[in-house]
Amino acid sequence: MSASPSALGDVTPQRMAFEQPLPLQSGAQLPAYELMYETYGTLNAERSNAVLVCHALNASHHAAGTHAGNPKSVGWWDNLIGPGKPLDTERFFVLCVNNPGSCFGSTGPMSLDPATGQPWGSRFPVVTVEDWVDAQARLLDRLGIERLAAVIGGSLGGMQALSWALRYPERVAHCAAIATAPSLSAQNIAFNEVARRAIITDPDFHGGDYYAHGVVPKQGLAVARMIGHITYLSDDAMAAKFGRALRNGALGYGFGVDFEIESYLRYQGDKFSGYFDANSYLLITRALDYFDPARATGGDLARGLAAAQARFLLVSFTTDWRFSPQRSREIVQALVTNRHAVTYAEVDAPQGHDAFLMDHPHYHGVVRAWFDRIAQELSK
Amino acid sequence: MSASPSALGDVTPQRMAFEQPLPLQSGAQLPAYELMYETYGTLNAERSNAVLVCHALNASHHAAGTHAGNPKSVGWWDNLIGPGKPLDTERFFVLCVNNPGSCFGSTGPMSLDPATGQPWGSRFPVVTVEDWVDAQARLLDRLGIERLAAVIGGSLGGMQALSWALRYPERVAHCAAIATAPSLSAQNIAFNEVARRAIITDPDFHGGDYYAHGVVPKQGLAVARMIGHITYLSDDAMAAKFGRALRNGALGYGFGVDFEIESYLRYQGDKFSGYFDANSYLLITRALDYFDPARATGGDLARGLAAAQARFLLVSFTTDWRFSPQRSREIVQALVTNRHAVTYAEVDAPQGHDAFLMDHPHYHGVVRAWFDRIAQELSK
Repeated sequence: MSASPSALGDVTPQRMAFEQPLPLQSGAQLPAYELMYETYGTLNAERSNAVLVCHALNASHHAAGTHAGNPKSVGWWDNLIGPGKPLDTERFFVLCVNNPGSCFGSTGPMSLDPATGQPWGSRFPVVTVEDWVDAQARLLDRLGIERLAAVIGGSLGGMQALSWALRYPERVAHCAAIATAPSLSAQNIAFNEVARRAIITDPDFHGGDYYAHGVVPKQGLAVARMIGHITYLSDDAMAAKFGRALRNGALGYGFGVDFEIESYLRYQGDKFSGYFDANSYLLITRALDYFDPARATGGDLARGLAAAQARFLLVSFTTDWRFSPQRSREIVQALVTNRHAVTYAEVDAPQGHDAFLMDHPHYHGVVRAWFDRIAQELSK
Repeated sequence: MSASPSALGDVTPQRMAFEQPLPLQSGAQLPAYELMYETYGTLNAERSNAVLVCHALNASHHAAGTHAGNPKSVGWWDNLIGPGKPLDTERFFVLCVNNPGSCFGSTGPMSLDPATGQPWGSRFPVVTVEDWVDAQARLLDRLGIERLAAVIGGSLGGMQALSWALRYPERVAHCAAIATAPSLSAQNIAFNEVARRAIITDPDFHGGDYYAHGVVPKQGLAVARMIGHITYLSDDAMAAKFGRALRNGALGYGFGVDFEIESYLRYQGDKFSGYFDANSYLLITRALDYFDPARATGGDLARGLAAAQARFLLVSFTTDWRFSPQRSREIVQALVTNRHAVTYAEVDAPQGHDAFLMDHPHYHGVVRAWFDRIAQELSK
């Protein structure tokens, strides 16, 4: 009997190698590469019940379940995915792929560049949301999955879901984009840029080739993570969780930890910089900056989304100030203009952007109902 | 004839030395110190028309006018202060003092510690809003000003104005607190903490004693300033000014400057780190963190403000998300609870927190009317 705290139990990551280079939006290409992925549930005989889950900045292919022998290794969306969960693995075959450029096993800056035998480092090509979608599509080809019952993602994962509906309209029956935006605002880009400056100006960054120096730009990456973390939480959630509470009951009259919020942020920054790769952080924030399905249509989002054929679900959270409900409404409006089918839920949740990772009854109820309908359609 | 672009013309900074140590909130004291200040207008025979202007994080004693030979050296609140301006120097004697701990001529971390003959650096004591107010009060003592017609400040300056009304209630007839807050929120503190981490983890910081190494932590200070700058502008103002405009018309597929907002932030960060002292940035952000007139009353702001006797003006700006209108309303509510006289204006301005530095008709009209009434009272 499994001691896993996940309803799904232990899961096993898989690896697939691709010899054919991946052409990138930049004009460059990624030569032979590998993708890490996980699957949950069973692909039906018709191969019609596959649901692709797309991960956000900090996450990986490990979306649900646990890894054997490590009960703490619960997947990042385990509350949503599993037997009897809103995305029910007893009905759907769920896949999640670590995107190239990330740092959890798929080819990225830490991998060896076959041309040099050295880590890619600063020479790893800039990848985009579209490139990731193309890589995911090739994986599906290899698995014999022609058409997805659904693609779903939150935040940057939501952008991948939207991109799927645009690049492969005939391969996506349903598309769920949670807590996302049609593109980053100037303020979003600004936060990314400050985070990148913190990393790049860390002397241990060595122009991105720190692996050879036996160091990592920990301090810069920690600052980057602290900045990101502030934008993931709502002002109210921070006030409720930390307020002005003092760590030691009195002011220290120095620059150590006086306030609980300082302690929390330092902890988050240090923890993150211990496992995440700085080059991956640069690449993934850049992919965020670049995503803009309205770029090719002169800023006209409706025209930019015209090619989609999927039925959509959009969910936003009232206190999310990173990707506010207004940004989801822009997508909804553009889809409605195209007479695409779209369901939209604006969920009253206090947690800010992070709400998309939470087990919230209204939010999960909406996702459950949406997948229930898809399952019913499949069984017809 | 002056070529000054300021209605006030050229002004001359003054310096005053204090031999008596300044007791600080921390229990430490600042030994012999100097204060830089400027005055505009003429003190009347009754010494009753003095208005103290308090500066914010990045600013100095140079609030209005220009410095001789430098037409670009316009004071930071020149649009508000001068002959015929809302704070009319033909009626009021206006003073502005560079706070100790800052870096524009008053004693601060760059100054020589008399005990060692070396720059104070990391040994400069942590100063608070209350300490600044006490230092300003001593300067007024020396100038023979017993009572202020008014004290006024924006942002951190507004906190000093509030503190004046509490520490020296009999010395303040009127108090104007613009775009301020009764204390920092957890999110406000979080941004300060990230900025401080960027500075402190810069290897050129040398624990605060970088002067001896002939370097300054420029990169960390630039990142700190970039973070601050994001919080000074509204999301809408950034969108309107920069949007997703590309610097060179196309994506660069790298980590250079692609977007105009990146260029702007880098410029602001580099400029700031060229003239501002990193230790001062630490000290002043800490003073912001610590300000909390409700601390001694268990969080009860009304009781915390009970001692005031001044008549108040509060102004907030609709798009200010650093110190939102809600924070000003908390102050207004606490003053009303005490039956203190208070005028409150919530100004519809797009610029965010920076609006308090702008020449906005509604805002300046309110300030003008408020000072007109004070002038009328003085002439009775």
